[in-house]
Amino acid sequence: MTTTPLRTAVVIGCGTTGTSVALALTAAGVEVALIDEDPRAIAEAVALGAGTAWTAQRPPADLVVVATPPSEVVDALYGAQSRGLGYVYTDTAGTKEIVSAEAELRGCDLKGYLPGHPLAGPDDIGRDAASGDRFTGRPWVLCPYETTPDWALETVATLVELCGAYRLDLAPHVHDRIVAELSHGPHLVAAALSTRFADSSAAFLGLAEQGLKDAVRTAGGDPWLWSDVLAHNAGPVADVLDRIADQLAQAAAILREGDASAPLELALTLGEGRRGQAALDLAGDLRTTRDAHVGDRV
Amino acid sequence: MTTTPLRTAVVIGCGTTGTSVALALTAAGVEVALIDEDPRAIAEAVALGAGTAWTAQRPPADLVVVATPPSEVVDALYGAQSRGLGYVYTDTAGTKEIVSAEAELRGCDLKGYLPGHPLAGPDDIGRDAASGDRFTGRPWVLCPYETTPDWALETVATLVELCGAYRLDLAPHVHDRIVAELSHGPHLVAAALSTRFADSSAAFLGLAEQGLKDAVRTAGGDPWLWSDVLAHNAGPVADVLDRIADQLAQAAAILREGDASAPLELALTLGEGRRGQAALDLAGDLRTTRDAHVGDRV
Repeated sequence: MTTTPLRTAVVIGCGTTGTSVALALTAAGVEVALIDEDPRAIAEAVALGAGTAWTAQRPPADLVVVATPPSEVVDALYGAQSRGLGYVYTDTAGTKEIVSAEAELRGCDLKGYLPGHPLAGPDDIGRDAASGDRFTGRPWVLCPYETTPDWALETVATLVELCGAYRLDLAPHVHDRIVAELSHGPHLVAAALSTRFADSSAAFLGLAEQGLKDAVRTAGGDPWLWSDVLAHNAGPVADVLDRIADQLAQAAAILREGDASAPLELALTLGEGRRGQAALDLAGDLRTTRDAHVGDRV
Repeated sequence: MTTTPLRTAVVIGCGTTGTSVALALTAAGVEVALIDEDPRAIAEAVALGAGTAWTAQRPPADLVVVATPPSEVVDALYGAQSRGLGYVYTDTAGTKEIVSAEAELRGCDLKGYLPGHPLAGPDDIGRDAASGDRFTGRPWVLCPYETTPDWALETVATLVELCGAYRLDLAPHVHDRIVAELSHGPHLVAAALSTRFADSSAAFLGLAEQGLKDAVRTAGGDPWLWSDVLAHNAGPVADVLDRIADQLAQAAAILREGDASAPLELALTLGEGRRGQAALDLAGDLRTTRDAHVGDRV
């Protein structure tokens, strides 16, 4: 493995993820230029110390990071490659199969593009939440094409390293199933749960316990960004939602039947839920178990 | 309103709720005697300073608190009244309509019994979580019968006050609908969400973000206690589960159809979910709005 230079970077999209990447790279001594269709977003990121606004006079950067919502990645990538903004390109979108396939169909230069996704919390809490520490100790998924050359892999691996994350290579469809189970499906469940409270009285809501507030917190995410993510991972997310809908409908049927066995039947589901909760709570950082085959036993 | 003496109490059931009530009363100078079918539970509560083990030589107490799971309340109440353990009785079960009706059918002395429910977190985290502060600032629902005399109301109101809670009178069916929406339904949703992770690999679970762990935390509750509670509030809980199941199945159908309008349709649900999440997060303590009619606008 050669020492890969990463001295200059362009970040396209100054949301929470893009600004956080820019802050981490700037802190690591990389010269970062920022692009966003909203000049205020650039100004705010610059004010946070994330870099400077990109200008057309710049030479190609060592790395271009496309940090837009999933549906805008391929357009942004194609445009950036056409304008020669850099040598190596990656993205940070939360879905990977459609993005990878569309980049190929669109005719992007795949030798210079490596799809990626830092798993560092939903990009839903505004630019104020941007932080150079956002990726520290977290997994950063890379989805190399079969044809991805080592020089591109090494540059993006350096990005991951400078952000304090650890690299996890996955096939795009495996990535998408994993995030459907751990993030996208649960997000829609939280949203469904909390729609009920949109027009409730303060007197009623004041009776809620902390556990419910915690359970629906993720539903506070940006609806437009999330609907874009969910629509880009439609099949795996629909599978998760149908499974949970079936479980809830089955529990409702048991309750309505009112057989004497109802508590026993419900306790089986609740017991399995408790096992799952305990497993999830105990699960440490993947770094301790990264030799395990994530994709094999999702 | 007269000054009601509450100098002696019996607590039946030394779980988290019963032990916490006993601790609060003991701290307030009430002499508390403890009953539980499990002698170890009594010993542990005594060791925490919750009172002393009940003995048959005692005179009737000012108040008897039945702190068992819902399905055991009426038996425990009937038995305690038959043995003349006290003058006034209440319970702390998380469902009220069946408990209230069964107490009447069973022939309990309704003049001396006032059904109640402190809304202070699920009783699922073990006796270690027992605390005299458990009810501080929280609502404590009372469901008086039409025939409940003032002297019984005043004794139980004193209990609520000594526990640092505030009294909220509700009809039993209104109470049950409220807790179905705010607690029982969401509990089963969390359990359904987390069953998926019962047998997952540590490598997979290590990719989960904090938001998911928070969303399913409540699923860690005791399956037997919760199945008892849910079966005792079957209709209202089934309504909540069916509604959420329909929402999830509808979202799954939108995703599978894959129309260009899918992101827009999903964003409508997500937007309503965000409004609900924000409303829930902002909802303060009912004490600030307790003049509002909780039951009218559930």
